Amino acid sequence: MAETDRQTEAAKFEADYTPGSASAGIVQPRDVTLAGPPDELTLSCGRRLGPIRVRYETLGTLNEARDNAVLIIHALTGDAHVAGLHAAGDAKTGWWDIMVGPGKPIDTDKYFVICSNCLGGCSGTTGPADPNPATGRPWGLDFPIITVEDMVHVQRLLIDHLGIEKLLCVTGGSLGGQQALAWPILYPDRVATTMVIAAAARLSPQAIAWNAIGRNAIVSDPDFNGGQFYGGPLPRRGLAIARMIGHITYLSEEKMRWKFGRQLRNAAGPAYDFSSEFEVETYLDHQGNRFVERFDANSYLYFTKAMDYFDLVAQHGTLDAAMARASSRFLVVSFTTDWLFPAYQSREIVNALIRTGKRATYANLKTDHGHDAFLLEFPELHRIVRGFLDESAKQCRVR
Amino acid sequence: MAETDRQTEAAKFEADYTPGSASAGIVQPRDVTLAGPPDELTLSCGRRLGPIRVRYETLGTLNEARDNAVLIIHALTGDAHVAGLHAAGDAKTGWWDIMVGPGKPIDTDKYFVICSNCLGGCSGTTGPADPNPATGRPWGLDFPIITVEDMVHVQRLLIDHLGIEKLLCVTGGSLGGQQALAWPILYPDRVATTMVIAAAARLSPQAIAWNAIGRNAIVSDPDFNGGQFYGGPLPRRGLAIARMIGHITYLSEEKMRWKFGRQLRNAAGPAYDFSSEFEVETYLDHQGNRFVERFDANSYLYFTKAMDYFDLVAQHGTLDAAMARASSRFLVVSFTTDWLFPAYQSREIVNALIRTGKRATYANLKTDHGHDAFLLEFPELHRIVRGFLDESAKQCRVR
Repeated sequence: MAETDRQTEAAKFEADYTPGSASAGIVQPRDVTLAGPPDELTLSCGRRLGPIRVRYETLGTLNEARDNAVLIIHALTGDAHVAGLHAAGDAKTGWWDIMVGPGKPIDTDKYFVICSNCLGGCSGTTGPADPNPATGRPWGLDFPIITVEDMVHVQRLLIDHLGIEKLLCVTGGSLGGQQALAWPILYPDRVATTMVIAAAARLSPQAIAWNAIGRNAIVSDPDFNGGQFYGGPLPRRGLAIARMIGHITYLSEEKMRWKFGRQLRNAAGPAYDFSSEFEVETYLDHQGNRFVERFDANSYLYFTKAMDYFDLVAQHGTLDAAMARASSRFLVVSFTTDWLFPAYQSREIVNALIRTGKRATYANLKTDHGHDAFLLEFPELHRIVRGFLDESAKQCRVR
Repeated sequence: MAETDRQTEAAKFEADYTPGSASAGIVQPRDVTLAGPPDELTLSCGRRLGPIRVRYETLGTLNEARDNAVLIIHALTGDAHVAGLHAAGDAKTGWWDIMVGPGKPIDTDKYFVICSNCLGGCSGTTGPADPNPATGRPWGLDFPIITVEDMVHVQRLLIDHLGIEKLLCVTGGSLGGQQALAWPILYPDRVATTMVIAAAARLSPQAIAWNAIGRNAIVSDPDFNGGQFYGGPLPRRGLAIARMIGHITYLSEEKMRWKFGRQLRNAAGPAYDFSSEFEVETYLDHQGNRFVERFDANSYLYFTKAMDYFDLVAQHGTLDAAMARASSRFLVVSFTTDWLFPAYQSREIVNALIRTGKRATYANLKTDHGHDAFLLEFPELHRIVRGFLDESAKQCRVR
């Protein structure tokens, strides 16, 4: 389908849909230090970590009942800046600005939205680029391996700090969806409803393979220097390759056909050399190069490893045993062309929820945007999130 | 499905199937020098190349009518050694031994089988590791860019050399299938029947992307040295990453689930470090390391670029215009779980053949082996190849 046809289809699709257009405005990032001695966090790996600095942002107002808090969790390369701007005139809004703001599906006029940078990250929360107290040098690969569960524990400490006993909702997509899914299992009394988007109870071997190849590219980069590259040349080439692989897995084959086709840079014909000629090649070069400017290669290693390890079946014996621990209501969303977190994985979650008597609903949304769909203009997803969340607020008394 | 269930299913499937078990025996590789001056080959890029050394092997006997010749073309990492052994006691047979030999589907008791290493390769045919006559040094990246069509032209020179006016059949899978498809379009009078397996008239943008990322990994390796790595350290890490990416695209997601699952090397639990723990990781490490022992990184660049460039639509205006040139009969085969060369691409070829009045038949074979299925024990594929080829021999008088 040609790009113009797509646009027409999109326009038709959106004829009855008016997204909130107001921005959440200027949002101030905040830092808080948690898990200080003697209350260091005991990680899944057995090591203790603390104090832990957490970068977070909030939007909207916590009501007096403290029952309107929505925790949003970012994906592999996201951060705490979920919506709005950091300063007037910023060229870029937060990563889920399309979903979060006044009048938007996650409506900051109604809800108190919290988003924090995940443990091990590179956007303000303690991670491998921070100094190792034992040496004064950056942690690098001496930073402990962290898991999805460890990330959730840190978020729980943040929620404590904010004086919130029970979240109205926890949500996220991809790695954020894995964490959202872990929340009501780890802290059944602390979350009323859960929206799991484009996620899985455990990664498929194919998804592990992509992560493993990406990590391999990073550690093979001669500038990786065993993870101690801070202050020196960065492992740019390896990290760019990891990002390129990632990008292809976020797009559907269908979308790549209409987005890139087989268009050559030079319409006159092939250059007959090894330059990046096809449109998809220049796209990959651009994505790879842009990414290395903003992301830490070590955080990429730690986050993908956390994704790989996450396995509710291995941890609880069966998926039913995992889900039986939750008392949350659930919305599970998958996308028909998501081949990184295929729909069958969402159905596995939903079936386990139904078998264990949980209140769960499931939407497999038709789209050709693939895994990335949760980040894009996608009216049907937005209506579903709005509907579920507003109903949650009515039904779920969090106290 | 567990591995044992699969085996039971396979056993059942094969109950009525007896593959030929006899080996083609010892096969002698041969070299011939073609396109010597003043008859150098004019390549698609406009440059002239010659003399060209071609490594090839033959099995069976060319009959007196010279009408029983079958040209088999290898895929990305194959070579001229299609079946049999090079020496008694060899641990490894040729790459399509399962398909080619006495009593096998491509029966060397009936057919004269030819297989040559493709132009630009690293297994005996002229390629980037050979000396550039202008400098005496290995060509490296000064070797001209070659196309699928160039490879076919060299095969045609070999067929001339062997005194064969018309091939009974030309066949191959993947890159070999692209060449097989190009043959009857370039040389309609020289081929009676064509078997195109797991191939496409043009690569999808997703498939181009995987090739591009693999090339990027190779040229980013500091040991690549602009392609002049011969005699020095090889770009092992980059080539291994390219191979790992390739391997995942050759397997279906389904097969990876039952082949690897989420099995950890240590059953006691996670190691909580960045070692290769999941079975799929050790598989990738092994495949990557093994590949760099046997394949030239520059040939990988040239072959993947040839795959990317191949585009019958761009070359002929429409697929119909391309197919209209052929006078061959066609068998087109795809595999249900092949996501690198998806079945829709085979249907595009077949539909164009039907529209242009060609004799074409199509099989979309159900398998969970993905793109690799053409290389494996696959009774239904073997029956189909045997049936089509034997019928071809009856119907198609090549003279």
